[in-house]
Amino acid sequence: MIASPFLLYLGHSTDPVGIKTSRGLATFRSTDCVGEFRHDDCPLTLGLPRLTMAEAAAHGAKTLVLGIAHPGGDMAPALIEDAAAALEAGMSVASGLHHRLHDVPRLVDMARSRGLDLIDVRDPPADLTVGKGTPRAGRRLLTVGTDCSVGKMYASLALTEGLRSRGAKADFRATGQTGILIAGSGVPVDAVVADFISGAIEALAPARSDGGWDVIEGQGALLHPSFAGVSLGLLHGAQPEAIVLCHDPARKEMRGLPGRPMPDLVETLALNLQLARLTSPQVYAAGVCLNTAAFDEAAARALCARAEQETGLPATDPHRFGTDPILDLLCPASSPPGTTASR
Amino acid sequence: MIASPFLLYLGHSTDPVGIKTSRGLATFRSTDCVGEFRHDDCPLTLGLPRLTMAEAAAHGAKTLVLGIAHPGGDMAPALIEDAAAALEAGMSVASGLHHRLHDVPRLVDMARSRGLDLIDVRDPPADLTVGKGTPRAGRRLLTVGTDCSVGKMYASLALTEGLRSRGAKADFRATGQTGILIAGSGVPVDAVVADFISGAIEALAPARSDGGWDVIEGQGALLHPSFAGVSLGLLHGAQPEAIVLCHDPARKEMRGLPGRPMPDLVETLALNLQLARLTSPQVYAAGVCLNTAAFDEAAARALCARAEQETGLPATDPHRFGTDPILDLLCPASSPPGTTASR
Repeated sequence: MIASPFLLYLGHSTDPVGIKTSRGLATFRSTDCVGEFRHDDCPLTLGLPRLTMAEAAAHGAKTLVLGIAHPGGDMAPALIEDAAAALEAGMSVASGLHHRLHDVPRLVDMARSRGLDLIDVRDPPADLTVGKGTPRAGRRLLTVGTDCSVGKMYASLALTEGLRSRGAKADFRATGQTGILIAGSGVPVDAVVADFISGAIEALAPARSDGGWDVIEGQGALLHPSFAGVSLGLLHGAQPEAIVLCHDPARKEMRGLPGRPMPDLVETLALNLQLARLTSPQVYAAGVCLNTAAFDEAAARALCARAEQETGLPATDPHRFGTDPILDLLCPASSPPGTTASR
Repeated sequence: MIASPFLLYLGHSTDPVGIKTSRGLATFRSTDCVGEFRHDDCPLTLGLPRLTMAEAAAHGAKTLVLGIAHPGGDMAPALIEDAAAALEAGMSVASGLHHRLHDVPRLVDMARSRGLDLIDVRDPPADLTVGKGTPRAGRRLLTVGTDCSVGKMYASLALTEGLRSRGAKADFRATGQTGILIAGSGVPVDAVVADFISGAIEALAPARSDGGWDVIEGQGALLHPSFAGVSLGLLHGAQPEAIVLCHDPARKEMRGLPGRPMPDLVETLALNLQLARLTSPQVYAAGVCLNTAAFDEAAARALCARAEQETGLPATDPHRFGTDPILDLLCPASSPPGTTASR
């Protein structure tokens, strides 16, 4: 779908959270990334070689990935200049921003005349329908969060790998631009027409009867005033057997909303379970995933212990401590694969 | 925005529910409607003169309004023929269907060459942004529902007129195609990109400090698995001071979901208030509007009385009994306009 290897774009970014798409590819598709492109005013790095457009093309990069996010996803003039330079150097350009490369005639013309691709990852499928909430077969896990950008994608990928490592079938179902770039497919749920949110997720993770799991990447947060609608449609469409709550204990305020304090774990879990029951009456919570990157190991362990105490659920940092505490609950190691009873 | 007078389109419709947009205009913009256009196989009427395209144009009609709905909103060939005939006769064409007039090159060319307009009411504004949930000034009322199509638009229009009749300033804020055609402006919230649901409503009803009301038309239902995401984003974006619950007591199952029973009034109210508090901590319920069209007057009065007993709120059928019981709570007749204290 998107030709690799990739050159990862940081541009003029100064917010580490804003480059999470580029960072996700650097982490989960590391062997497909030849370098990073950043301007002199960008203090961030992914630890990859800093390359110009021409150098990246010479190193074999096929696609510049605009792996940055702005609130609202503006296609700023500086970004258009850099995309044009990438095309000039012979690379295709992929973007996860809301505003489309295809809506910039200059880029469309350049790509066409050079035989290169413009890929707008946020373009939703054309054949979506409204969700129905009809009970469907299969084991589905949805990651939910106290906020945006608290590690739902990372947790989903780690849980998918963990389930597979225990012999279970498991598929990561991507719902955001980074996840879609990593997985190679998915539905950009925040870009779907509002009427089709739950229907898009029903299509993304349809009924399955092979005993395997669909691990669905959550988006937004039910207690985030900007995005709760997306999160609720996703929750209803996912019809999850289990939810895993993701949280960043270093976050003081909700993302993009200065002054709005973070909701607590127990309140967030309770609300997700309450609203999920509309389409999944037996839904249960299977654990908590913390992003403890900002803390030393002792503090990270203490945070997990406190989360376990508060919620009564296994808590871990999937990056630091793995996902075993949650997998023990979802897929006990002693059971033969595929025979775990539904709770 | 849309030039009047109107010719209302019924076409080949046979389903009374399918012509609700044309019917809404006939009801709420009656003096702007010169007639109806229907084919011989259409058994329905709005009680307006049946006119050909040429007759309508001769009577001064400026716009043919395609006020019909198909599931999915297809632009059928017969519809395109009729739209072309209207342009031929010198009228502009407005449509509330999902499929766009602007996607039919023949119609685009005809309109351009004749200096006429094609208006796709479901095209959302291009400049939407994500909502913030920041407290904003103004008195806002949102109609919410136990289901889709239970009278939220009708109740919103009736409450707007009622507030004005008591000397208050009040503006109807449309969120669906019929409401937008009636009001002449609005945001088609179900066609907005999912990330922008709450932001679209913040833009539709921005801060106001003249003491007047924005009466915002609700969509969908929080307990409807197909559309709850839209309803939640709308609720958060509306940041309502007050909600009014709309319900159709004749409805046995949720619309489009055979076998799913209707939620009850108390549960629906409680959930709307609970979730609305995220952006409007002092939100209150101001009443219940029932659509009692299927019942005789005694039964209708009994249904209102039962709803009052169940919810502890004033309940009325706005079409049959007016909105006074709710207005008494929102805008006591004894207060000078604009001085009613916020509860």
